[in-house]
Amino acid sequence: MPTKDQIQARYNLLIEDLTERGVDVNDVRQRLQNQRIETPSWGYGDSGTRFGVFQQEWAARNTQERLQDAAVTHQHTGVAPSVALHIPWDKVDDWAALKQYADELGVEVGAINPNLFQEPDYMLGSVCHPDADVRQMSIDHLLECAEIMRVTGSDIMSVWLADGTNYPGQDDFRERKRRLLECLQAGYDAMPNDARMLVEYKFFEPAFYHTDLPDWGTSLVVCQNLGDRAQVLIDTGHHAQGTNIEFIVAYLLDEERLGGFHFNCRKYADDDLTTGSINPQELFLIYTELVKEENDPNSTADIAYMIDQSHNIKPKIEAMIQSIMNIQMAYARALIVPYDQLKEAQSAKDVVGAEMIMQQANNTDVEPLLQTLRVEAGLDPNPLEAFRRSGYLEKAAAERREGPRTGWGA
Amino acid sequence: MPTKDQIQARYNLLIEDLTERGVDVNDVRQRLQNQRIETPSWGYGDSGTRFGVFQQEWAARNTQERLQDAAVTHQHTGVAPSVALHIPWDKVDDWAALKQYADELGVEVGAINPNLFQEPDYMLGSVCHPDADVRQMSIDHLLECAEIMRVTGSDIMSVWLADGTNYPGQDDFRERKRRLLECLQAGYDAMPNDARMLVEYKFFEPAFYHTDLPDWGTSLVVCQNLGDRAQVLIDTGHHAQGTNIEFIVAYLLDEERLGGFHFNCRKYADDDLTTGSINPQELFLIYTELVKEENDPNSTADIAYMIDQSHNIKPKIEAMIQSIMNIQMAYARALIVPYDQLKEAQSAKDVVGAEMIMQQANNTDVEPLLQTLRVEAGLDPNPLEAFRRSGYLEKAAAERREGPRTGWGA
Amino acid sequence: MPTKDQIQARYNLLIEDLTERGVDVNDVRQRLQNQRIETPSWGYGDSGTRFGVFQQEWAARNTQERLQDAAVTHQHTGVAPSVALHIPWDKVDDWAALKQYADELGVEVGAINPNLFQEPDYMLGSVCHPDADVRQMSIDHLLECAEIMRVTGSDIMSVWLADGTNYPGQDDFRERKRRLLECLQAGYDAMPNDARMLVEYKFFEPAFYHTDLPDWGTSLVVCQNLGDRAQVLIDTGHHAQGTNIEFIVAYLLDEERLGGFHFNCRKYADDDLTTGSINPQELFLIYTELVKEENDPNSTADIAYMIDQSHNIKPKIEAMIQSIMNIQMAYARALIVPYDQLKEAQSAKDVVGAEMIMQQANNTDVEPLLQTLRVEAGLDPNPLEAFRRSGYLEKAAAERREGPRTGWGA
Amino acid sequence: MPTKDQIQARYNLLIEDLTERGVDVNDVRQRLQNQRIETPSWGYGDSGTRFGVFQQEWAARNTQERLQDAAVTHQHTGVAPSVALHIPWDKVDDWAALKQYADELGVEVGAINPNLFQEPDYMLGSVCHPDADVRQMSIDHLLECAEIMRVTGSDIMSVWLADGTNYPGQDDFRERKRRLLECLQAGYDAMPNDARMLVEYKFFEPAFYHTDLPDWGTSLVVCQNLGDRAQVLIDTGHHAQGTNIEFIVAYLLDEERLGGFHFNCRKYADDDLTTGSINPQELFLIYTELVKEENDPNSTADIAYMIDQSHNIKPKIEAMIQSIMNIQMAYARALIVPYDQLKEAQSAKDVVGAEMIMQQANNTDVEPLLQTLRVEAGLDPNPLEAFRRSGYLEKAAAERREGPRTGWGA
Repeated sequence: MPTKDQIQARYNLLIEDLTERGVDVNDVRQRLQNQRIETPSWGYGDSGTRFGVFQQEWAARNTQERLQDAAVTHQHTGVAPSVALHIPWDKVDDWAALKQYADELGVEVGAINPNLFQEPDYMLGSVCHPDADVRQMSIDHLLECAEIMRVTGSDIMSVWLADGTNYPGQDDFRERKRRLLECLQAGYDAMPNDARMLVEYKFFEPAFYHTDLPDWGTSLVVCQNLGDRAQVLIDTGHHAQGTNIEFIVAYLLDEERLGGFHFNCRKYADDDLTTGSINPQELFLIYTELVKEENDPNSTADIAYMIDQSHNIKPKIEAMIQSIMNIQMAYARALIVPYDQLKEAQSAKDVVGAEMIMQQANNTDVEPLLQTLRVEAGLDPNPLEAFRRSGYLEKAAAERREGPRTGWGA
Repeated sequence: MPTKDQIQARYNLLIEDLTERGVDVNDVRQRLQNQRIETPSWGYGDSGTRFGVFQQEWAARNTQERLQDAAVTHQHTGVAPSVALHIPWDKVDDWAALKQYADELGVEVGAINPNLFQEPDYMLGSVCHPDADVRQMSIDHLLECAEIMRVTGSDIMSVWLADGTNYPGQDDFRERKRRLLECLQAGYDAMPNDARMLVEYKFFEPAFYHTDLPDWGTSLVVCQNLGDRAQVLIDTGHHAQGTNIEFIVAYLLDEERLGGFHFNCRKYADDDLTTGSINPQELFLIYTELVKEENDPNSTADIAYMIDQSHNIKPKIEAMIQSIMNIQMAYARALIVPYDQLKEAQSAKDVVGAEMIMQQANNTDVEPLLQTLRVEAGLDPNPLEAFRRSGYLEKAAAERREGPRTGWGA
Repeated sequence: MPTKDQIQARYNLLIEDLTERGVDVNDVRQRLQNQRIETPSWGYGDSGTRFGVFQQEWAARNTQERLQDAAVTHQHTGVAPSVALHIPWDKVDDWAALKQYADELGVEVGAINPNLFQEPDYMLGSVCHPDADVRQMSIDHLLECAEIMRVTGSDIMSVWLADGTNYPGQDDFRERKRRLLECLQAGYDAMPNDARMLVEYKFFEPAFYHTDLPDWGTSLVVCQNLGDRAQVLIDTGHHAQGTNIEFIVAYLLDEERLGGFHFNCRKYADDDLTTGSINPQELFLIYTELVKEENDPNSTADIAYMIDQSHNIKPKIEAMIQSIMNIQMAYARALIVPYDQLKEAQSAKDVVGAEMIMQQANNTDVEPLLQTLRVEAGLDPNPLEAFRRSGYLEKAAAERREGPRTGWGA
Repeated sequence: MPTKDQIQARYNLLIEDLTERGVDVNDVRQRLQNQRIETPSWGYGDSGTRFGVFQQEWAARNTQERLQDAAVTHQHTGVAPSVALHIPWDKVDDWAALKQYADELGVEVGAINPNLFQEPDYMLGSVCHPDADVRQMSIDHLLECAEIMRVTGSDIMSVWLADGTNYPGQDDFRERKRRLLECLQAGYDAMPNDARMLVEYKFFEPAFYHTDLPDWGTSLVVCQNLGDRAQVLIDTGHHAQGTNIEFIVAYLLDEERLGGFHFNCRKYADDDLTTGSINPQELFLIYTELVKEENDPNSTADIAYMIDQSHNIKPKIEAMIQSIMNIQMAYARALIVPYDQLKEAQSAKDVVGAEMIMQQANNTDVEPLLQTLRVEAGLDPNPLEAFRRSGYLEKAAAERREGPRTGWGA
């Protein structure tokens, strides 16, 4: 671990270097200080694959403990002050009390995520189900979530559907499309006036023949139908192999329909691995599109940056801190791209030169910058190691080994 | 090869069977008689992979010979009366003469396909190129094609773009999007008033980092921008692995933005194999969506069914006849699905039952029906064998072995 | 549903047709009569995705009920007399009693499948685990399974490993390879002398960065190390997108290392759908390689045909009968390929002709043949409909709604 | 561009950092000094996609010019002293003269690459072709290449086959396997006694239904058959999407059958992009396996590191220098992984800790080290910029604009 003096020396050299490259260091510092990343309550509890859940003794057992863990994550990183909730996993009797508890912990309620896949009635779908009563059940759940938004102050309903079919002929695509639009409209209309609905898509799983929202195109069409406050949510793990995600980011930004991200990582399908663990260049490239949007004075973008991961074999808080650090690094690297020089190289049709500009930024070791900002904010320069030293996991394990659990892996 | 009596016996048994299943046989017969499939001029000339073109001695050398081969294909199948042209591959000095020549051959000019990828100036793009003069060159080509449409009577401009980039940073996605819209709009506005522009997409190749129209979502957005007579064209080989194409077909039909198909087949990328050669079930499932659309009295759909293939190792006309026969089979099988029973099974949530209804149709041997319709139309029941017996290839080989060639593989 | 007379008429016409094509109908009939397909005990119990298990009221609750359901499947199809067991899901105290019970039901114990993935200790692997004591635990389980083979008379140990890692650096590939070989060798050596170990591979899941047996190449190397009675098992759903499975079948047959199949179907990853439901042509092509092997008088092949599916949303026995019918159809179609004519076309380099020979077989409606053979064997020509009429599911549901369950979805 | 003092300052800080991490800096320096990368003659000439070749005015026109460009690449990088040749593209009348010319340029002949795909006779295959005379033609070419190895002193025959089929039924997999083994054996036996045959595999293209050597498993089986001096060659772009290539590297090293690499990069299929341009983490992970092998005192590995790229839109020498720099970076990052600490973390089952060790190395900016080594070797710290300043391209363009061309894009 580097000493403060070493960090300082490296920081100085980095700043010197960046300044020479023409980077506005103060602007970069400020944006990094303003970065915010929401963590998901379900990322602190047990999860697994269809082959089994490996329970962790320190895993949070209920909503309160999930908020505690989110708060600890925020304390160590300084950039994760909000927590996404999953209903009914995080459902409590007294929302006002929960809100106050979150407040005491120093975090706030973020996006509300309806769960439209676990009830036995949803075996053949929720908002797309052939039966009107199951669809009504799903509408009721959306209305319930809208109400929870109201009482918790949440301004985002984050909708992911498991709807789809497993076999050709099982149901009619176009009927399902109409049912989906009708049900989501009911949920959309019930939201608080200033709230947004983010519509997620996913290539496949748990449906294995067709998915009702398989790609950004379908989500966009849905949003166009719902209204201005409906936007597409990109989950970085929900694409066909080879898909250029940064292009989709740029396209949706240009259409003013990008609402937010569910960050995670994958090598195969929806692996839900730690963000930045596989092909970190992709995360950097995604962030260059976001930074370009930030640089546009006419931008109306309002992006929710949220993590959505399953830490099946890693201690949950550790994985969350690691994810945040990886996202910070990607953002920092995207911020130091000299976009004016890049544009020049592009105009000059200098393919090699333009690529080298991107590579230089992505190859830069931005750790000294991130560490310095943490120290300035009163944090440990290495949040992960600080968390490990804190003994929190051991303490949590001792307290949580027994007792009932709610949530995904329960 | 079955005798006429055998065909008759099999036909009788099939009709009996279908009638019992509740199929309206007369309607099926009529729709099959009305089926039309356009063949591409470039499918009759040499083509290849980047590793080489294997020249075939019987391959058509110029536009006139390509029309001859298309006419022969139509003579044997009875369902392929129009020919798509590729400009400038098929460019001639005297369009009126060409039109008259086609007329004499018994075929007509179909879709006009601009070529925006072969000029050296297009190395970094055509309508998305960073340089305004290259973009103007691409606009001029679109205007030229619009003019050719006017003189040939073609009412479809079929646009496929090779535009994209090979390396991160090479160009700006959003700038390219705006350039693309501007250039295509110019082409769109220049078309005859009743003509349509079909906008094709492709997952990748020849661009290897990003493609400017990679999926149906981007094509749809482009069409929404261009105007009512812009529609999406689906090339069956242009999707990421695992993509559910029949879902896209249904979705675009429902959005009233499906304009047509480029039929071919693939196991890997854009392999351009004979339609129906790999996973013929997929073609059947695509056609069930089309038949359902036909069954809708309110449908406004107007679908152009076109083949787009590279017969690198097969004799070209043989492969074309084979493709047409495979498409006929898929359509026939889709026509005999009892959609009312299917809807009932879907409503009853009988997953197995609904699937079995689809499978029964797909497993039915519809050859006796197709053969009978051919015989009734004065054709040989097996067009491929009839063509082989005709000696056309041998004659063509003798005539075409030498001389200059135009087109793709030239 | 066709009458017996109709089946007879169609059968006669089909036989006439096949005979004209040069097919040895008696040989085809005989081979179809001898076809055997093993069903998996776990296919009769609840299963699901990581997002949830939808419990079915008629699902088998324990080993005895799973054998009952397998016996019913066999009664309706006549070709599924053996049942694969999964240990410890199917573990019983008295194996002799179980064997006798199976005998009474008219089925027998087939392959024994060790479970090396569900114990909490296996979170980071089983036979590849970094800790020697966990590896010993996995060896002990293999020895236990070898012992169960002895008492049940099973002659196949079917090994699938979930071993792998989720993150770069998590463990050392080569160390894991050596551990794997050492542990499997212990299991191999413990098997009855005439028994085989079938080594399955899988592209990914539940491991998401690397899998220790990801492809047939690794399984083959493992088998070469273990000994002559180790062979590769192909699960049809365990390959990368685009993989040509029939080529692997041919290759392993040629290396005399193909031991068996786990049949199921997929559109995306390891979807575990009903065999033959997606891209049935692939199953046909796989079977053509198997038939060619059967036709070879020098063949030493001994292939175990086993189903491995998760019927998440279909009634389990219905899905199993459907799967068997689909496999029968693929085999029947592969049997009627005129391989001599195919070889001639191949030698003549007639690409179109050779393909048409394959297509004609695959397009043939072989139902009348399969139905006739069923009738001759005293079975209903349509086993699925007969099963539905039997009321078995309703009866099972009434009995099984309550009570403890063992197995996957328990 | 940093000054020498800046490079020195950064180097000092980096060395201090690495030393603290426990890295043996001298060893790292020495290995980087010894690194060698072979460039391909065909990478200096025109290439393209099936949609066209964009000729570059500075592209090398013949073998001599390709050697010149390779020499220039070596002069600027100091690590690329050998050049792979492609026969017949690089065929010359006087091999002795060519060898001497290479010698004068300061480079030497590397691997000999037979071309078994461009002759019209190879339309349906080369060593797997149904006709014995075409197979003999392919054998003759292998013998010719063996002879060229003798006269040029090359000790590697690098075999890539385009063999495969486009349609089911086109040919027999097992017959082709036997033909392939027989023909390659003839080539293998004809090689100089100390030479190796490297057997490449490729998932698909230009064959689109099956490829005769589609994966490392088939290449391994072929090598096992040929003899001890046959080894597998890994082309980094020749795998199915999602394939874990570093695992294959480790596996083949452990089997002592990894012979070498063809480095390039891909996002989709065999895109032949600049190495390290897409997902550079993958290249780093591949190199960690190679470094671990180097660290093994018992290793017998002898790996040929070769580049195989198509620079369709980049100036060729620039792309080659860029590739070499990217490979150097990946190697440098892999060298500074503290493998002892990694092993400790793995043994402690610290998934997060082990991953962080890998990430820290991959995130380290090793440019100051590479630049310093270049300066010490009398090279410019930034070879790409130095090459651009040299005016070589402009001079080459002036000389090469006209005249006949040999090779791929000719």
